Amino acid sequence: MLGLVQDRPLLISSLIEYAALNHGDVEIVSRSVEGPIHRTNYREVNLRAKKMAQALTKLGVEFGDRIGTLAWNGYRHLEIYFGISAMGSVCHTINPRLFPEQITYIANHAEDKFIFVDLTFVPLLEAVKDHLTGVKGFVIMTDEAHMPETSLDNVYCYETLIEAEDGNYEWPVFDENSASSLCYTSGTTGNPKGVLYSHRSTVLHSFCVCTTDGLGIGNRDSILPVVPMFHANAWGIPYAAAMSGAKMVMPGSQMDGQSIYELMEQEQVTLSAGVPTVWLMLLGYVKENNLRFSSMNRTVIGGSAAPRSMIETFVGEYGVEVCHAWGMTEMSPLGTTGNLLKKHENLSDDEKYAIRQKQGRTVYGVELKIVDDEGAEQPRDGVAFGRLLVRGPWITSGYFKHEGGDVVDADGWFDTGDVATIDPDGYMQITDRSKDVIKSGGEWISSIDVENEAVGCPGIVEAAVIAVPHPKWDERPLVIAVKEKDHPVTKEDLVHHLENSLAKWQLPDDVVFVDELPHTATGKLLKTKLRDEYKDYKLPTA
Amino acid sequence: MLGLVQDRPLLISSLIEYAALNHGDVEIVSRSVEGPIHRTNYREVNLRAKKMAQALTKLGVEFGDRIGTLAWNGYRHLEIYFGISAMGSVCHTINPRLFPEQITYIANHAEDKFIFVDLTFVPLLEAVKDHLTGVKGFVIMTDEAHMPETSLDNVYCYETLIEAEDGNYEWPVFDENSASSLCYTSGTTGNPKGVLYSHRSTVLHSFCVCTTDGLGIGNRDSILPVVPMFHANAWGIPYAAAMSGAKMVMPGSQMDGQSIYELMEQEQVTLSAGVPTVWLMLLGYVKENNLRFSSMNRTVIGGSAAPRSMIETFVGEYGVEVCHAWGMTEMSPLGTTGNLLKKHENLSDDEKYAIRQKQGRTVYGVELKIVDDEGAEQPRDGVAFGRLLVRGPWITSGYFKHEGGDVVDADGWFDTGDVATIDPDGYMQITDRSKDVIKSGGEWISSIDVENEAVGCPGIVEAAVIAVPHPKWDERPLVIAVKEKDHPVTKEDLVHHLENSLAKWQLPDDVVFVDELPHTATGKLLKTKLRDEYKDYKLPTA
Repeated sequence: MLGLVQDRPLLISSLIEYAALNHGDVEIVSRSVEGPIHRTNYREVNLRAKKMAQALTKLGVEFGDRIGTLAWNGYRHLEIYFGISAMGSVCHTINPRLFPEQITYIANHAEDKFIFVDLTFVPLLEAVKDHLTGVKGFVIMTDEAHMPETSLDNVYCYETLIEAEDGNYEWPVFDENSASSLCYTSGTTGNPKGVLYSHRSTVLHSFCVCTTDGLGIGNRDSILPVVPMFHANAWGIPYAAAMSGAKMVMPGSQMDGQSIYELMEQEQVTLSAGVPTVWLMLLGYVKENNLRFSSMNRTVIGGSAAPRSMIETFVGEYGVEVCHAWGMTEMSPLGTTGNLLKKHENLSDDEKYAIRQKQGRTVYGVELKIVDDEGAEQPRDGVAFGRLLVRGPWITSGYFKHEGGDVVDADGWFDTGDVATIDPDGYMQITDRSKDVIKSGGEWISSIDVENEAVGCPGIVEAAVIAVPHPKWDERPLVIAVKEKDHPVTKEDLVHHLENSLAKWQLPDDVVFVDELPHTATGKLLKTKLRDEYKDYKLPTA
Repeated sequence: MLGLVQDRPLLISSLIEYAALNHGDVEIVSRSVEGPIHRTNYREVNLRAKKMAQALTKLGVEFGDRIGTLAWNGYRHLEIYFGISAMGSVCHTINPRLFPEQITYIANHAEDKFIFVDLTFVPLLEAVKDHLTGVKGFVIMTDEAHMPETSLDNVYCYETLIEAEDGNYEWPVFDENSASSLCYTSGTTGNPKGVLYSHRSTVLHSFCVCTTDGLGIGNRDSILPVVPMFHANAWGIPYAAAMSGAKMVMPGSQMDGQSIYELMEQEQVTLSAGVPTVWLMLLGYVKENNLRFSSMNRTVIGGSAAPRSMIETFVGEYGVEVCHAWGMTEMSPLGTTGNLLKKHENLSDDEKYAIRQKQGRTVYGVELKIVDDEGAEQPRDGVAFGRLLVRGPWITSGYFKHEGGDVVDADGWFDTGDVATIDPDGYMQITDRSKDVIKSGGEWISSIDVENEAVGCPGIVEAAVIAVPHPKWDERPLVIAVKEKDHPVTKEDLVHHLENSLAKWQLPDDVVFVDELPHTATGKLLKTKLRDEYKDYKLPTA
């Protein structure tokens, strides 16, 4: 027997319509790519998104077509987010920091029909335009006065397209499971793979972001997402802000500490969100200039693990609560948030920081479990670690065009590729990537744990730990390290240092010193290369 | 093109499973019907709900079967809420305060297969048992030691049923649009009508309740819902509390000021929810005994309009923020919440109270509009009023068994039966029931406005205002009033008093004094009776 409830699909159009009708005057403030601060509001964003939908319809864009964007955080990007999805097409955000070949691959694989591009990234497209096979035209996100000379063909001016329309347009109603947006994620191996979100997943994820235990976004917030809108839908904030009618403040291309700080103060930002690197720059600027945050009461740190010192500075020195969050492009992206529980109120600062340093607890909607190599669930005791699997209505069921094959198991679980512990209160902590963990005689050793300890040894600048085959233990850890120039540190010194904090069976079987370690474009250790290079390495213990 | 996202249905089982796994130790505290304070937690509630599902399955309960409850707020009622819905049956909460004939009608109309009953209400069922046509048995919500002598047939003891099971049971997975719970709403005319919620509507509504701008429920809350769980799913709080892992505190049958206050203090309640009548009792007790609230920081007032003096007392005297909310059984029930906006921060207290007195703004998910008799939308200017229509994914599409016929229009709007204004910021204020409004020469006069002013006149104890036919103006207001015993107040005195606050065209055309006014069982003015009685009344102006 079915319930008797109105059959209203969860569509992205309902988010911006809600904001336009109920929070129409709430400001959307952007540092524009052209220079000045630009102010608009939800009523205008909705109207201009509708005009954009009218213009794109005339250009032949149809339901389900993919439309690329190469853009900073700004009001036009926000209009595109809503306009393209709400009209039934797919908003495909492309990371402009990727290598040109990757951008070409991604735009072609997605079959992008048009690409919206900020002035900054026009040269980037010019360089690859001859390789873009399906793109019918480029919309440059500026007005006529700022249109650049360009070698691109079929170029349109964003403001000219908008100005030609009247906005007299009703958002279409369709299946909430329809695709709404697309974001490629690039691993260290293979081609980038596309995550295809739906309207339903986006609205459910927005609800989660707006809950008190999610990111707690409400209409009294002024939110500055430093995380770029080409990353995993910028953590769901643009949609959640519309759902709650929160003010949005967007930094454009100026991500330095001073620019971010000034915007925070001018626009009385209450909540910000970004990766640790950006916060390092911001905190550096604030400290150097002996400043305070006058309105910001909380910040979300995600993308990679937040160092404890950063959490301590925000909370202890500046009174800004930190929500240490974890997620993945494949998860829309919110998976866990690191808020403290009621029972933690009376803990010492030290104990609280230890909890905040973990990646947090699941929000309702995301199920987590850790399993061993046989798929057996591991205990939630904060000690046992296993491969982290996730399941939920905003988690991918497979990559675009079935790239990478089946990615969920028979029970619907998606393997994150991470290895983690979960403590009895549900706080999860990532300990390693599963391909990097060292499996020694049935026990797992976290390569990251050993690396973190190794770089604490005097004279060691950087260290990578990989598994090397071993006849008795299957695998044993090998440290590959870079020394400070002319430092006398030896293998024995390093192992001795590691003995202070690691169990005997976790100690490396050997140490190799090299001049430099290989890295990915985004600065991560390229362990695939190291594993390949050292695959025949003979350990002294073998 | 569809998105590539996991197809996970939104089921009530996922709420209690989330709470059991992630907030298993969080307490559920109840003042039991048997007497003592009882403590359990989410892990136990889920386990016992599963045992109940096992027991009911053995008793022949099937998917979609309706199971009635006649119960106070307590842990067993909570177990039933989750257990019955999660197993795929329909939890049908019955209001024990209804007349026996109404309870019989409702249980028979719903075709309840079993009825769960608190000790308090056993006599009530005994009185009507011979008229209950489909009930196969009664489960008395107590243990063997407290089982009463009863004339009911096929009686089961709740704890005995539970004890016989092992809880080794997986919640079934099914269509999220399946019916989950049923609640009858009784108007002043016709038979009570059943609102049939779905799993999807319940989970979406729970998300809304947990958002910052909904009721902002989070895992640091300790919530005391005074609103009974036989009312509109107790405003969604039991589900939302599980979604966030909040502590629940339930008052059982003891709704007096002292009992509620003591529970609030002992259990460090942060949030409560109830109707104005209950808060009057609570505030009376707190004032008389010169007490304070040590932990409660906000309260939700709904069910009927909160008097300004009550809001002032909570906010001004006790520092408890008030969320004035509005909804209907037909709306799950949340429609609007009366939180202040960022822009209101610098208003005077007086201006803030004026805003808090309105019923609030829509949460995302509920669309509101006001229309005139021709269905034309009226402006959101805070002055124009019209029939209030609502639409959204947790609003009824029709009553159970199609009672009352089609209740949504071609565009999906449900007519609330209320007349309201909406101001430019979206704050809605109910001005009347649409059947009570007086339509005078194209202008609408709120009967409630006139009544409220009339009872402010010295000597007037109670007043009802109804429309009486008028040859020129179609309808004109007639006041039917009760005087204080022996008070000399006259018709002229009353009209003179009304001239202070009402426009000339809103003044009544006549006043009739009576000894008493007719009321419904729940104490509301029975205007249908008055309209019938005065339908041929000849106004002096006619």
